[in-house]
Amino acid sequence: MTQIVSFIGLGAMGYRMAAHLPKHFSKVLVWNRTSNKAEEHATTYGTQAVTLQEAVQADIIFSCLPTSADVEHLIQPLTIKSGAIWVDCTSGVPESAKKLEVQLKEKNVAYLDAPVSGQTIGAENATLTFMVGGNIETFEKALPAMQALGKLIKHVGDSGAGFAVKAVNNMLMAVHLCAACEGASTLKSHGVNLQEAFECINASSGQSTVTSSVLPQRIFNRSFPNTFALPLLAKDTGIALDLVQNAKLSAPVIAASQSLIQAASNLVEPNSDFSTVAKMYEMLNKVTIE
Amino acid sequence: MTQIVSFIGLGAMGYRMAAHLPKHFSKVLVWNRTSNKAEEHATTYGTQAVTLQEAVQADIIFSCLPTSADVEHLIQPLTIKSGAIWVDCTSGVPESAKKLEVQLKEKNVAYLDAPVSGQTIGAENATLTFMVGGNIETFEKALPAMQALGKLIKHVGDSGAGFAVKAVNNMLMAVHLCAACEGASTLKSHGVNLQEAFECINASSGQSTVTSSVLPQRIFNRSFPNTFALPLLAKDTGIALDLVQNAKLSAPVIAASQSLIQAASNLVEPNSDFSTVAKMYEMLNKVTIE
Amino acid sequence: MTQIVSFIGLGAMGYRMAAHLPKHFSKVLVWNRTSNKAEEHATTYGTQAVTLQEAVQADIIFSCLPTSADVEHLIQPLTIKSGAIWVDCTSGVPESAKKLEVQLKEKNVAYLDAPVSGQTIGAENATLTFMVGGNIETFEKALPAMQALGKLIKHVGDSGAGFAVKAVNNMLMAVHLCAACEGASTLKSHGVNLQEAFECINASSGQSTVTSSVLPQRIFNRSFPNTFALPLLAKDTGIALDLVQNAKLSAPVIAASQSLIQAASNLVEPNSDFSTVAKMYEMLNKVTIE
Amino acid sequence: MTQIVSFIGLGAMGYRMAAHLPKHFSKVLVWNRTSNKAEEHATTYGTQAVTLQEAVQADIIFSCLPTSADVEHLIQPLTIKSGAIWVDCTSGVPESAKKLEVQLKEKNVAYLDAPVSGQTIGAENATLTFMVGGNIETFEKALPAMQALGKLIKHVGDSGAGFAVKAVNNMLMAVHLCAACEGASTLKSHGVNLQEAFECINASSGQSTVTSSVLPQRIFNRSFPNTFALPLLAKDTGIALDLVQNAKLSAPVIAASQSLIQAASNLVEPNSDFSTVAKMYEMLNKVTIE
Repeated sequence: MTQIVSFIGLGAMGYRMAAHLPKHFSKVLVWNRTSNKAEEHATTYGTQAVTLQEAVQADIIFSCLPTSADVEHLIQPLTIKSGAIWVDCTSGVPESAKKLEVQLKEKNVAYLDAPVSGQTIGAENATLTFMVGGNIETFEKALPAMQALGKLIKHVGDSGAGFAVKAVNNMLMAVHLCAACEGASTLKSHGVNLQEAFECINASSGQSTVTSSVLPQRIFNRSFPNTFALPLLAKDTGIALDLVQNAKLSAPVIAASQSLIQAASNLVEPNSDFSTVAKMYEMLNKVTIE
Repeated sequence: MTQIVSFIGLGAMGYRMAAHLPKHFSKVLVWNRTSNKAEEHATTYGTQAVTLQEAVQADIIFSCLPTSADVEHLIQPLTIKSGAIWVDCTSGVPESAKKLEVQLKEKNVAYLDAPVSGQTIGAENATLTFMVGGNIETFEKALPAMQALGKLIKHVGDSGAGFAVKAVNNMLMAVHLCAACEGASTLKSHGVNLQEAFECINASSGQSTVTSSVLPQRIFNRSFPNTFALPLLAKDTGIALDLVQNAKLSAPVIAASQSLIQAASNLVEPNSDFSTVAKMYEMLNKVTIE
Repeated sequence: MTQIVSFIGLGAMGYRMAAHLPKHFSKVLVWNRTSNKAEEHATTYGTQAVTLQEAVQADIIFSCLPTSADVEHLIQPLTIKSGAIWVDCTSGVPESAKKLEVQLKEKNVAYLDAPVSGQTIGAENATLTFMVGGNIETFEKALPAMQALGKLIKHVGDSGAGFAVKAVNNMLMAVHLCAACEGASTLKSHGVNLQEAFECINASSGQSTVTSSVLPQRIFNRSFPNTFALPLLAKDTGIALDLVQNAKLSAPVIAASQSLIQAASNLVEPNSDFSTVAKMYEMLNKVTIE
Repeated sequence: MTQIVSFIGLGAMGYRMAAHLPKHFSKVLVWNRTSNKAEEHATTYGTQAVTLQEAVQADIIFSCLPTSADVEHLIQPLTIKSGAIWVDCTSGVPESAKKLEVQLKEKNVAYLDAPVSGQTIGAENATLTFMVGGNIETFEKALPAMQALGKLIKHVGDSGAGFAVKAVNNMLMAVHLCAACEGASTLKSHGVNLQEAFECINASSGQSTVTSSVLPQRIFNRSFPNTFALPLLAKDTGIALDLVQNAKLSAPVIAASQSLIQAASNLVEPNSDFSTVAKMYEMLNKVTIE
């Protein structure tokens, strides 16, 4: 069966993700708010730049937008192809996924919340991780399309579960980032060599992807490359804390870390990389983390 | 040059560490508070069980005791061989290292704070990580002996720096453990499959050694194997928080996590494994983490 | 002008509040889910027990229910008297107030969020504090009716502002309660006489209504009288944390305290008094607060 | 019996406290590091400016210095009158009190840790609160002298207990200050009138001396009068957190608040008033608290 696939939202992630689809599908439609980006994509990767209304006539529709609110707003006026599957790769809100699943079902459209991790490098190499919530049969139908873009693709639960896992992943990363900045500042204050210290820690129980990748590649070398904006991390931690609250749970470390990420996001320049959380700590502690 | 090496403190770590020394040194002395353990070690590994006073006549003296207070108390009445190097593998207090270095120097004995990570499996396979503080020349002299027991051996700074790195490592692990329990409880409450979810997280930015090893191997499977007692982790987090305070730093995530580890340590059975922190969260949230 | 006044919800607060109205208004209607309570009130205080539909034909309609969700659910099917003012004394959610204000306005009914403080004793003595959000002219029209029940009656802002102030008040109380339990446990552990210590603190900068009233009257004497249920306090702290999050603020002390109150609420018997937060601390610290 | 009384340390508190002593004792000696302040005191209040060695020949010796380290350093070389009572009004460290009590006892000098609260206004009006640790008979002997300076004078426990109570009082104040700033920022963000809101809160369960005095008198009016330096508050919260840790307690709200006070102290100008904690929050939240 020949499927038509479309991709909506050609940001830093979406642009690279959509580039893999023509290798697997004969007809790939792309749409982006600023249309010249879609045209550039079509020229470069052999996709077709179309109108939004055309894009939603595909069999499988990927979306990758900044927030769930953007997705809801975009979907509202559309007449989507009956029988289509909407695979939403946004780092979104679980409640929104549940709502969209119900709304789209009425129009005979299936919805999966399918956020990804792996950053732009993972998008480029089609090695993303997909954490997917929604109906299991829908998941299986959309699996080949997701496999074109990712490596580890997991069905983690009902609608909203994918967004929940992504939010918790980013929340854990945020906690680890705060802890790493605090620990590094402490060692620096006591005259310890940070490079040597974290080489030890990275071979020990205190290791995290933050200590082994973020610290050396973004913070110690003062590069703070702008690949994942701090306000988006703040948003994700907010989603995670909402999940905590909705379930009436006690999560003091998550709650404290969320406060700090929010403060850092309020403090730094808009669109600063998430690693600039380190700069807030440097300001509060008068200790450079390098 | 033929060196005599001794090992003081044959606990779960020390017993396994000392076992490697006879492969590299012709004369290896061991001492333990309960002497039959030393004799068993001598019989099994070809070491010599001696008195404490004899043990401290070696050229290189390893110690591995529960706390710095134990080391200080043990050293006080001893007449240590002039020119010896004392390599203290205890997870100790930086201030104590600085004090012992000065006190022992007066007796022409060098002191290194050289705590290890890698747990009993690392001790057994001689793949421990040593994070070492103290004089760099002393470090180089003691390096071959440490290489007999470990793989990554790093000089991280002046006296006390080794203990500081170990305390911060364990503090980071403690933070990650709290965050992992909180995140897992949240996902569980929202009906997410924890195994699948953490497979995704372990391939993503939220990964830590806690999420990839501690969660599946100790908590999800309800084994809580008793290998590293929670009160010792609580002690280490206390050392880390003291370092924060002494440097007049602000470290809210470390501070919050230390409180929780201390509460868990107060709550659970004495000598419970550190992973039983999960049980405190289960009690506070009425959610099983599995 | 003769006004008809009604009171909906005769719980511990509402029952006592409605009792004052017949002194000021010739016709006072009351309604309660369990109607025998309304009849008892009518017999005792000279009010009239009516149906819910009759109650909402009054000129001024007071409501005092457990949550905003209860109020929304109750209002939905009703046909309220055109021109009426609804004075909602529930400890509710600011967003709900904004929504109700708009919805009721369409039916020519004005809505004020007008939560109260002062507990049952304040309700009994008509010395409650009203913190009121909504239209200022509506506030002025409803003022005489509120003055029948309270002493300090403040217009604090637009719709939702009253609920916001109540939520923040209760959140501050929750923070103070956690801090008082922590401080008292610390002093007790160090052998300090708590009664004498808090007599000093209550004359010093560390005083709060919690230290001067809650500690001696509910905790030190082990009475924990069941007047304000801990789950309701947990709910209020959740509302406050939502306000923090919606405004993208950093409030680490509020966030940490909210987590602890939620944990205590999960732990203790349902409907335990809010002061039983002390019992959670006693469990976590193995120190009795008395 | 005629007693000679001396006062060591004529800072903002000591200067005003010592001024009351000549009304009750015929011979009052004063000493200050910068001696012209002592001479000015002698001229103004009829005390005698003496050498430090002369000052410690009094029957009752008051001291009021910035830290316990200052007191220890000052006492070390002195030969104090046998039979004297040293009343230390410093906001000091409990461990230091225990040590000084033992050391001075060997020289037949009694020591009381007797910190005060009530600020300069309380010192001026002799309405201070004394929270006193140490031997009860010594307390009773020194009581008349303390009564010359204060109103509420309490024996709260053994040596160190006075310092502990003062540290916990200031810690509670610090928690309340953080919570008040967080709560006020939240209300401000939601458009609530802060003056009206806190008038309600001050009549409700969320009241504290911080909300009823510090907020209106120092923060809302942007005066931040420099009467109690933030680094001294940070020091006191550090003492309180040490007490928590020494007793192996879990005190998450104290721990989080201590971190924030320390951060604020690191951030603001040296010697800024403690109320400038509000300025840190304003920076982190981009919300003015007024």
